[in-house]
Amino acid sequence: MKKKHIYIYSPSSAVRDKAAYRRGIQRLQALGHEVEVDEAALSTYQRFAGDDRTRVAALSRAAASRADVALISRGGYGLTRILDAIPCKAIAKAIERGTEFVGLSDFTALQCALFAKTGAVSWSGPALGEDFGAEDGPDEIMEACFDDLLQGQGEGTGWRVPPREAEMLAGFRGLHGATLWGGNLCVLTSLLGTPYFPAVDKGVLFLEDVNEHPYRIERMLDQLRHAGVLARQKAVLLGHFTGTRKLPHDRGFDMRTVADRLRGLIKAPVLTGLPFGHVPTKVLLPVGAKVEVAADGRDVFMVWGHRHAPGHRAH
Amino acid sequence: MKKKHIYIYSPSSAVRDKAAYRRGIQRLQALGHEVEVDEAALSTYQRFAGDDRTRVAALSRAAASRADVALISRGGYGLTRILDAIPCKAIAKAIERGTEFVGLSDFTALQCALFAKTGAVSWSGPALGEDFGAEDGPDEIMEACFDDLLQGQGEGTGWRVPPREAEMLAGFRGLHGATLWGGNLCVLTSLLGTPYFPAVDKGVLFLEDVNEHPYRIERMLDQLRHAGVLARQKAVLLGHFTGTRKLPHDRGFDMRTVADRLRGLIKAPVLTGLPFGHVPTKVLLPVGAKVEVAADGRDVFMVWGHRHAPGHRAH
Repeated sequence: MKKKHIYIYSPSSAVRDKAAYRRGIQRLQALGHEVEVDEAALSTYQRFAGDDRTRVAALSRAAASRADVALISRGGYGLTRILDAIPCKAIAKAIERGTEFVGLSDFTALQCALFAKTGAVSWSGPALGEDFGAEDGPDEIMEACFDDLLQGQGEGTGWRVPPREAEMLAGFRGLHGATLWGGNLCVLTSLLGTPYFPAVDKGVLFLEDVNEHPYRIERMLDQLRHAGVLARQKAVLLGHFTGTRKLPHDRGFDMRTVADRLRGLIKAPVLTGLPFGHVPTKVLLPVGAKVEVAADGRDVFMVWGHRHAPGHRAH
Repeated sequence: MKKKHIYIYSPSSAVRDKAAYRRGIQRLQALGHEVEVDEAALSTYQRFAGDDRTRVAALSRAAASRADVALISRGGYGLTRILDAIPCKAIAKAIERGTEFVGLSDFTALQCALFAKTGAVSWSGPALGEDFGAEDGPDEIMEACFDDLLQGQGEGTGWRVPPREAEMLAGFRGLHGATLWGGNLCVLTSLLGTPYFPAVDKGVLFLEDVNEHPYRIERMLDQLRHAGVLARQKAVLLGHFTGTRKLPHDRGFDMRTVADRLRGLIKAPVLTGLPFGHVPTKVLLPVGAKVEVAADGRDVFMVWGHRHAPGHRAH
């Protein structure tokens, strides 16, 4: 396995769980990687990892790092505050040079803005602390996917849908050249109506969320629907929606009813089971990449192929 | 005081607090009003006051009621599901005939859609159960404002801003012919990017919310800002933001920092203290009406004048 250069920075919330943060760095170093830590990675200002200017500067340094991967320390909240200051062009250039940007949750704001403004592809995937610094060690699948990215070998992913979706899949004829995009539903929806929301036709939209009640998830999906976004998608992939506490007044209203209702309202298949979200076992997904999607029985395969031709990387 | 005809219906969540619901009806009856209850007012389906079709039919019956006021039993969640089925034209005609539509919270979705589609004016104000059915009796100011509406006498409202906003008000030259609009921030923001979001230039935007963390409130305000909405407003009025629990990691980040930051980012004055929100003491505010706003010291006055010329009412 080739050793790689990983740049750690904090564009969102302040790092509070320093133990997980340190464990994450140690884990990456133990794998033989060179871990470079941004000078403001542990900055704090209110709930943020430094004030807005500090976090914008950290993004610029990550773009200038020439690392193989720029990995967020954690998500949280902070990027929607600075959407108009994110150095999208510099990040897109860095990606062209071979630096992959990886993160999730609040990071969805950057990924969408970046794709909307430049078309550059970034990766929905782990964060340093929560994933690499997990107390009982990083998840094996997550780590394998991350390693695939580092070694330039990741070409796709697959998962199995629940039995009740088998019939839907039977009628699914596959997709070619669709644009994969998405991320955290709440953050993605918070970009609607702004110039930072990507206009994706014939897309494969993947979504996940954490600590949102199903009624809020439904309201956000309806916003995407009423805005015409869902009608332009060829597939909607639901990852994990964790921490969706039931309320006594729900009376049978839950994520399943939300997904079932959505299926009655849009043409595109709504598939669940995508291994992504605020869960340890997560795959890496290229936001903005062209993908092919196929199904066999209850198994879904999504392929994006090599993003970089051999020799294309700057180092 | 003239006795009026009040129509009670349930467009959103199911009525769970039946005691408050009954107290509300009794209170309105004790004031001498004729209270007509929609046949589906106590319907339930999952967490809703009947399925979508039932609640759409209830809206149609409210529009056909020829009541003086159509008042929601409660808010909750349900109207964003049926935005494309709300009988906006029928409601607008009912309003033209003299039926005033009153509600808040989830009702913001109907009010915005109605104004966007027809220009009709509805009222942000009380709900039956929570306000008229309050255990220790309805709030006097709310009740006086509601009575003003019933008697056709409500012409405006006023409130005092906190001392720290006095300087801002000193430079405020007043507004004429601005469009008052707004409501629940979360519901209003959930319409962005859809055809149900009103395009209001030179507006006075009022906002309230409940049980949202300040970071979520800021994210929603930023969405309105990035969408260009706030730049088109002449004033932003913040009502009550209740239930905004602090988290240990906020470190000084709160509603005050949210409002202060917003003031640095938009031209329009951001005034707090508007007596509206999920609080007992609330005024009634006409969504879509032209208003004049003036200030004297720390006192703000907002006037909308008579909406209906004498004799214009159908009954």
